[in-house]
Amino acid sequence: MRATVFRGVEKFGLEELEKPRAREGEAVVRMTLTTLCGTDLHIVRGEYPVKPGLTIGHEFVGVIDELGPGLEGYRVGERVLVGAITPCGQCHACLSGHLSQCGHGSGYEAMGGWRLGNTLPGAQAEYVRVPAAQANLAPIPAGLSDEQVLLLADIASTGFSGAESGGVRIGDAVVVFAQGPIGLCASLGARLMGASRVIGVDGDESRLAFARKLGVDVVLDYRNQDVVAEVKRLTGGGADVAIEALGTQQTFESALRALRPGGTLSSLGVYSGKLQMPYDAFAAGLGDHRVVTTLCPGGKERMRRLMATVESGRVDLTPLITHRFKLADIRDAYALFGQRKDGVIKVAIRP
Amino acid sequence: MRATVFRGVEKFGLEELEKPRAREGEAVVRMTLTTLCGTDLHIVRGEYPVKPGLTIGHEFVGVIDELGPGLEGYRVGERVLVGAITPCGQCHACLSGHLSQCGHGSGYEAMGGWRLGNTLPGAQAEYVRVPAAQANLAPIPAGLSDEQVLLLADIASTGFSGAESGGVRIGDAVVVFAQGPIGLCASLGARLMGASRVIGVDGDESRLAFARKLGVDVVLDYRNQDVVAEVKRLTGGGADVAIEALGTQQTFESALRALRPGGTLSSLGVYSGKLQMPYDAFAAGLGDHRVVTTLCPGGKERMRRLMATVESGRVDLTPLITHRFKLADIRDAYALFGQRKDGVIKVAIRP
Amino acid sequence: MRATVFRGVEKFGLEELEKPRAREGEAVVRMTLTTLCGTDLHIVRGEYPVKPGLTIGHEFVGVIDELGPGLEGYRVGERVLVGAITPCGQCHACLSGHLSQCGHGSGYEAMGGWRLGNTLPGAQAEYVRVPAAQANLAPIPAGLSDEQVLLLADIASTGFSGAESGGVRIGDAVVVFAQGPIGLCASLGARLMGASRVIGVDGDESRLAFARKLGVDVVLDYRNQDVVAEVKRLTGGGADVAIEALGTQQTFESALRALRPGGTLSSLGVYSGKLQMPYDAFAAGLGDHRVVTTLCPGGKERMRRLMATVESGRVDLTPLITHRFKLADIRDAYALFGQRKDGVIKVAIRP
Amino acid sequence: MRATVFRGVEKFGLEELEKPRAREGEAVVRMTLTTLCGTDLHIVRGEYPVKPGLTIGHEFVGVIDELGPGLEGYRVGERVLVGAITPCGQCHACLSGHLSQCGHGSGYEAMGGWRLGNTLPGAQAEYVRVPAAQANLAPIPAGLSDEQVLLLADIASTGFSGAESGGVRIGDAVVVFAQGPIGLCASLGARLMGASRVIGVDGDESRLAFARKLGVDVVLDYRNQDVVAEVKRLTGGGADVAIEALGTQQTFESALRALRPGGTLSSLGVYSGKLQMPYDAFAAGLGDHRVVTTLCPGGKERMRRLMATVESGRVDLTPLITHRFKLADIRDAYALFGQRKDGVIKVAIRP
Repeated sequence: MRATVFRGVEKFGLEELEKPRAREGEAVVRMTLTTLCGTDLHIVRGEYPVKPGLTIGHEFVGVIDELGPGLEGYRVGERVLVGAITPCGQCHACLSGHLSQCGHGSGYEAMGGWRLGNTLPGAQAEYVRVPAAQANLAPIPAGLSDEQVLLLADIASTGFSGAESGGVRIGDAVVVFAQGPIGLCASLGARLMGASRVIGVDGDESRLAFARKLGVDVVLDYRNQDVVAEVKRLTGGGADVAIEALGTQQTFESALRALRPGGTLSSLGVYSGKLQMPYDAFAAGLGDHRVVTTLCPGGKERMRRLMATVESGRVDLTPLITHRFKLADIRDAYALFGQRKDGVIKVAIRP
Repeated sequence: MRATVFRGVEKFGLEELEKPRAREGEAVVRMTLTTLCGTDLHIVRGEYPVKPGLTIGHEFVGVIDELGPGLEGYRVGERVLVGAITPCGQCHACLSGHLSQCGHGSGYEAMGGWRLGNTLPGAQAEYVRVPAAQANLAPIPAGLSDEQVLLLADIASTGFSGAESGGVRIGDAVVVFAQGPIGLCASLGARLMGASRVIGVDGDESRLAFARKLGVDVVLDYRNQDVVAEVKRLTGGGADVAIEALGTQQTFESALRALRPGGTLSSLGVYSGKLQMPYDAFAAGLGDHRVVTTLCPGGKERMRRLMATVESGRVDLTPLITHRFKLADIRDAYALFGQRKDGVIKVAIRP
Repeated sequence: MRATVFRGVEKFGLEELEKPRAREGEAVVRMTLTTLCGTDLHIVRGEYPVKPGLTIGHEFVGVIDELGPGLEGYRVGERVLVGAITPCGQCHACLSGHLSQCGHGSGYEAMGGWRLGNTLPGAQAEYVRVPAAQANLAPIPAGLSDEQVLLLADIASTGFSGAESGGVRIGDAVVVFAQGPIGLCASLGARLMGASRVIGVDGDESRLAFARKLGVDVVLDYRNQDVVAEVKRLTGGGADVAIEALGTQQTFESALRALRPGGTLSSLGVYSGKLQMPYDAFAAGLGDHRVVTTLCPGGKERMRRLMATVESGRVDLTPLITHRFKLADIRDAYALFGQRKDGVIKVAIRP
Repeated sequence: MRATVFRGVEKFGLEELEKPRAREGEAVVRMTLTTLCGTDLHIVRGEYPVKPGLTIGHEFVGVIDELGPGLEGYRVGERVLVGAITPCGQCHACLSGHLSQCGHGSGYEAMGGWRLGNTLPGAQAEYVRVPAAQANLAPIPAGLSDEQVLLLADIASTGFSGAESGGVRIGDAVVVFAQGPIGLCASLGARLMGASRVIGVDGDESRLAFARKLGVDVVLDYRNQDVVAEVKRLTGGGADVAIEALGTQQTFESALRALRPGGTLSSLGVYSGKLQMPYDAFAAGLGDHRVVTTLCPGGKERMRRLMATVESGRVDLTPLITHRFKLADIRDAYALFGQRKDGVIKVAIRP
């Protein structure tokens, strides 16, 4: 089968590999649609360490091709969505509800739930072997297309969880820093939970326009204005919840400063290097702030809930898929996505 | 009446002031016992800004001397405890449950609930005028002495809230960084909530010995060992909750590193300058960590609950009062407390 | 001034009373729009006990006419919304966050927060005296009409709180028993919080049609089908949250049976007589069910949040106002509302 | 091997059965200590339906005898504790955190997590086959004896969860109705979580005396006094949390009436027949009450946490084991336990 293999910094591409076989508790799924994530860019650029030889990719939709021993209730040929996080359900972390810190049967492991395209062969391939498959294959309702559910595997689940971890309540004012794919999904999540006002911040006009189109109430361009002051003015003192979806010192600090006293900062961004918290906003320990970081929760129950939400028409993620490629052209997809050209938000890749 | 007045850096002492009168919604309380807080040291050293002329102090026990118009259910002569935070109960912050961010009738105000000895005349005086008295006078049960309840006004309430904000559950392993007054109270709070193991960290032998005596299960001296590694070893992977009770870069970072994946850092310390969060522990956004800062909650209901807890014998705070002074000798008390001499933890000062 | 006074069973109507004056901490508000609640029907029918001579009504919008001593930040002439619950903010219940159990300065009092039109003169009058006014006057944003915010005082706040107390999460399946005013608002609340599917149950065709129009996903007529079985079929095993909004044995029991194992029943109905819980659904103590009852939360912060939600366009309550009357014709309004004629949902009454 | 087999009402006893073998994902554990539960009495009396031929028992300590395929991190000979609830960790219920409603790989199933001695052969036997063993074998710390941990499998875990589900906080007043094994454990749980006062209610003098000895602060004999009135007097208006641990109409109703407005009733009792909720306390929907029922949570992580709590010395359950038997004499144990003779609380049974 063909798979997108990482060989070293900027060295990656399609290779012909042996088709995987399902061992005990595993399933093999034939991929019908996959996509690229910002994390995949970090991998091919050498910014996130993985072993050379790894098949990249952690988001996909497919059809069950083979079921290993020990699985119940599934059948070959069934359409399924698999979350980017594939928890075992049976370790101490999973049994505590920390699915993303899954220890694969034993204790807690930092980011242990993220295995596909990280420590196990991933999803930018014709076939994917899914670990702990009993806990991770979510059948797709008949009425939903592959494109309607593809982004639930990671980007939407993570974005929504930014709002969920932030504890958004009916009537909250929420500000989301950065309106890339994850920030847009966080904005959609805040709306879904009843925020009275969602304020989206970015410095890219096309992304701000896109955010407006998706239903973000107010968009702020940080290049033209003092965003913190404007959020305070609009909200009468500060946002109830700020969601950081980029991963820079600047956005983190602004998010903290844009909160009302006692507000919550929900952090989804991936930072590099040390992060400084300004003493006058948080570090004084006098603000009753909460800072919450979230790693996308997974498992088939999460996928089922999110698909039900799409099925009801509450949210439509297909506008975020701006470009489509064949697996054969995956390097073109990486190029477009990596350079943020042509207003790309997310790409869909079919076999 | 005599009051401890701040006049400038290291310039403070007893002065003769006019006895305050209770205006609408206020009460005047005759102080029978008061104490010093680390924050008071920050004030006299000029590290925390207040206006010269301020009477210092925010923790006290007393007897109602005068009741202003609009108060119900109290009588002159009643013994009462008043929390360091005196929320109005009627602003947006209070009605949202953020008592320490009280806006005095209107919106949210950072630290707005802390008024005595901060923006209003404080408690190291013979008489104290209490704002929003209906919400802030907590009658003391007959069986409890002034010394038994004095520390509930701030240090114990704050310490316990470190454990409460951290969400300590039955069976949790909790590590508390620094075993000064607030850290000791945080340790007691973690025990009260059912932690299976409380680990106390400090670099002062007498404080570690004191912690052991108070019931801390394991004490670690950071001068002799790699505390993070030892916490991980003792807990099989990291603490469920880490409480930071000092306010330095070192303790904050160690607290973060000592957590298991998905754990909670509850921060009580007062930091100065920028605080750095290490990218490899938190900032990567991949750890599902929560960082919670807490400002001591107040109000008469909080005081009532804590006094009930002391009354039942669940916790005894009197051992923390290591030294006693007369108000006339308050500068001696400041000197002893400021220099941490003679194993001082907290001092009690009577009129 | 004219006021709607209760004199005995079915004896009530407009009377000329003296205009109230604001005492300490109180305000007098000139009513510009008020409405009737099912509870008012219970009062005039003698089913809910109040003292003869009481002015009825607990929902209104108006303009500040007089401010008593001790109030800050308000001005005469300001448009305000006052919640049906008027908590003091300074008693033990309020300081614990139980605003609807307000004890007026002291402890907890069952339903103590509901005073207007219950134990104090109410809102179906030209002028209303508001207790604890600092905590209860919520300025109305300029862009919102009286009709847009009127129902927030009680029915919408209560309905939404049914969803909030039920802990509705993104992706939940929610069933709401009865689609009267409160049930419709509960359905809207469940949608607002991200329910993937809201199922409305009633036996009145016009109400079911109205529910569909408001955005309820599926409506079930209990006269034509086995509602419990149908909910289980639609949800694949039971609803995550069931909201009971009528107050009968039948709806309570059906709501309990329609839950999945471990689900939550949020009860808003007012029951009369003993309520039986079926042993096979709940009483066995083996279902991990939660049953939560909610009394409408109040206070100016709640009103502010809800008005912000309406202002953003997230929810529109004006379709629920189906009929309009003058205060002079309030007995006609009671007749129509009490007999549920002409598809009435809520009426609006202007002076 | 010998096993306690149910054959019909009051027909049960030791039989010689074939030793079980571990299939995929299962383990066989050699029992070293087991006990009887009130539920077992219901079974042998025909009050709880099971299939004739079932081996009874769901609480035990033992040594791993055989490990089936697919298990990792365990070794034969290891001492383990297995919870009464044996969740799979991989179904929708488990992945939602509802371990006791485990659907064994698929959806939710009422009480589905309770399998041993219910739908699978149980623990009053020399060998026990444990399903989903990866999620359910909890190694016992070296320093703990079998008797120290035996009751954690069910009675203590369930009792504690009564306090946990009730949301007991520092300073709460908690009343526990019935002081049998489960009520005593609920009382211990409330203490562990920081309740300021635990009030135990029963009508059996020896159990009240036992409760006092275990640390319950106040005991009330319902035969001699109006318990509801006394709880209200002692708590100044009602308990914050009431735990019902018997399962009768009388105790349920008293528990509800003993709450303060807005309090929580945590129900652990097993009721038979319809349960009536008095309209004046709860059903009016005006009290903001919560009623929570809990089925003992299980899984190896729960067992690990509880063993850590015992290891730290926070709680000692051995006094509850009042009598000891050999497996050969298990019918004598049932007779003593069923008749509540000789002050029996719990019995321990060794092979």
